[in-house]
Amino acid sequence: MTSAARPLLLSNVRLPDGSPVSVPVVNGRIEAPGPNVAPPPGAAIEDGGGALLLPGFVEGHTHLDKSHWGRAWYRNEVGPNLVDRIENERAWRKAAGHDAGAQSLALARAFLAAGTTRLRSHVDIDTDAGLHYLEGVLETRHALRDVLDMQIVAFPQSGMLIRPGTEDLLGSALAAGADVLGALDPALIDGDPVGSLNATFALAKRYGKPIDIHLHEPGDIGAFTLKLLLDRVEATGMQGQVVVSHAFCLGALPEPQALLERIARLDVALLTSAPPSRPVPPLKRCREMGITIFGGNDGIRDTWTPYGVPDMLERAMLIGLRYDLRRDDDLAIAFDCVSAAAARGCGFADYGLHAGARADLVLVDAETIAHAVVARPRRKLVVSNGHVVARDGALTDLA
Amino acid sequence: MTSAARPLLLSNVRLPDGSPVSVPVVNGRIEAPGPNVAPPPGAAIEDGGGALLLPGFVEGHTHLDKSHWGRAWYRNEVGPNLVDRIENERAWRKAAGHDAGAQSLALARAFLAAGTTRLRSHVDIDTDAGLHYLEGVLETRHALRDVLDMQIVAFPQSGMLIRPGTEDLLGSALAAGADVLGALDPALIDGDPVGSLNATFALAKRYGKPIDIHLHEPGDIGAFTLKLLLDRVEATGMQGQVVVSHAFCLGALPEPQALLERIARLDVALLTSAPPSRPVPPLKRCREMGITIFGGNDGIRDTWTPYGVPDMLERAMLIGLRYDLRRDDDLAIAFDCVSAAAARGCGFADYGLHAGARADLVLVDAETIAHAVVARPRRKLVVSNGHVVARDGALTDLA
Repeated sequence: MTSAARPLLLSNVRLPDGSPVSVPVVNGRIEAPGPNVAPPPGAAIEDGGGALLLPGFVEGHTHLDKSHWGRAWYRNEVGPNLVDRIENERAWRKAAGHDAGAQSLALARAFLAAGTTRLRSHVDIDTDAGLHYLEGVLETRHALRDVLDMQIVAFPQSGMLIRPGTEDLLGSALAAGADVLGALDPALIDGDPVGSLNATFALAKRYGKPIDIHLHEPGDIGAFTLKLLLDRVEATGMQGQVVVSHAFCLGALPEPQALLERIARLDVALLTSAPPSRPVPPLKRCREMGITIFGGNDGIRDTWTPYGVPDMLERAMLIGLRYDLRRDDDLAIAFDCVSAAAARGCGFADYGLHAGARADLVLVDAETIAHAVVARPRRKLVVSNGHVVARDGALTDLA
Repeated sequence: MTSAARPLLLSNVRLPDGSPVSVPVVNGRIEAPGPNVAPPPGAAIEDGGGALLLPGFVEGHTHLDKSHWGRAWYRNEVGPNLVDRIENERAWRKAAGHDAGAQSLALARAFLAAGTTRLRSHVDIDTDAGLHYLEGVLETRHALRDVLDMQIVAFPQSGMLIRPGTEDLLGSALAAGADVLGALDPALIDGDPVGSLNATFALAKRYGKPIDIHLHEPGDIGAFTLKLLLDRVEATGMQGQVVVSHAFCLGALPEPQALLERIARLDVALLTSAPPSRPVPPLKRCREMGITIFGGNDGIRDTWTPYGVPDMLERAMLIGLRYDLRRDDDLAIAFDCVSAAAARGCGFADYGLHAGARADLVLVDAETIAHAVVARPRRKLVVSNGHVVARDGALTDLA
């Protein structure tokens, strides 16, 4: 891996609107794209063969540290409840000596090969593992620092208040390099919505970090917790710095309008993996109200779920299916969830295909964005931070 | 293509329970599989390399005649209602000169390459197209007769009673080679649930054919129509000869128990594509009550939907996601929906991996059935009716 990318001209590609362009890249940044652009001095030239040009994909919510990606099949015999899954996982990982460093690296590289150049991963912090999994994922981030823009969320998967010592560990995780403070079901896991949220916001303020909370709580109790959370966003001035992940409750309330208006006003973003078996926040309505709502895979091939692939086009397809998006203009919304909206929701800077943006580029053989989402074709070329990191689905030696 | 397959020994494969076997095939039938089996006289030998052996997949509900598979991208700008989609499609197909023969052949071959060896396709019959689309699909069935076991449903996509002349055309379709009589929303499309169902059952009896009805009608009206249908199954003695496709109403009723009991008693089967955005019949409950419930893709890449691939492992994955099946034993249910249960629901005979079954075999590099469903690996080998029809995802010259 090199830290400085050689200049590049990506020629003979099509923008999503169909117009042919070439894209010059210097110092890892896009220079003015256009139909007839001279190669920058010393540039390598990549002929795109008329392929569709997309911005690098953004994974808004995954759990790199949990995955068994590339390992022997994990036989899932877990009970049906959230608590069963939490207990099973913590015990299994401890007993099996699960290597969060090696596994997060394997999965992150697979994401990169499939065109994801920015990624937010939650990482378990608990009183059994301490910061062990975080250390592994920090190593992965360091190893891929030139080619993958990674945010780490310090996530209390086993609860915070109910496991004394976790709060201090979360603080240590933020001090050690985690970018975002995570949280989990303040009422139904922590058992004390006010106390749990107060502790979370205090910790975030102390370390000057944004928040990304897992809120699985359904219907009325989810709405109750969400109101408490919004109160604290307002009281602490953390507008624009909080993501609510999952937010199933917003898909189940008969009248979520007042809550949605407040979410919009406080610039709280929503993350959905668009699970087919759960209520989900109303995608189009949120967008119309100005709420940033974006997509993520959640866990991939771990003790929680056997499903998932590190491919944001497949996640966009699943978002499209969940929200019954069939028209081409609607499928562009599904793609936005795993690209620009996710970059905005997570706060990844300089995102897009405009001059000045970080040169994160994906080429696919597809006629349109809608076609790319439903067909999920092999990635012909992936450029990240100006580096050619993958060709035809396989990583180059720059990744 | 040849009609008689050469004897075959498929050696060095694993059954879903993990046990190593070889499978002898003579005259297109499986002979007794076992750990140490001598090749039948004159047999070709295929070394499976330790791959997982699955029975050929069964597509329980698709629309081969509508698909644009392999054609230029169709830009979907259709309105949101069922009627919009029906009108748009009929007009588009007529204006575009859509070739149901070529398109059904392209899609059927793609199904075969991905391991589907039995398939039920609905084919539109209407007063604009007459039997034109049916003729195309009959040609496809004839072209693939040795390697794909195909059932054709004569389907009044534009309604039956509301378009006079359709009923006669459906009769002509059954006389011309369609195997099953289709029907569509007797209340909400045909506008006369009693009249429509009476006509459907009378036609089925006259031609001695089973019925497969599309029932999209939601909640209470769906339940109302379904009761009328069950009355007629009982009155006509058509137990075991009726499939209700979609049956969204069964996923939306607060108390479907009485209806489900009657469905079980009358041996009516249910088909679901497990759409993430619609209510679906309760899969496990149906199975526990003895109801045959099976899976299908529905349309693939047509004017209705941009989604879909002719891969029953992907459909099994989507069924698993819709019903939140995460344990290995639950994922085996998802696979059953696209294999044995679908064969039972459609009435495909001699299905399975036992001696005497039609030799429809698929090899994949996967550790278990659950692994195959979530990973959807390329098909290493597909055998249909004793013929090696595909290797590594590509058709051989026998298909």
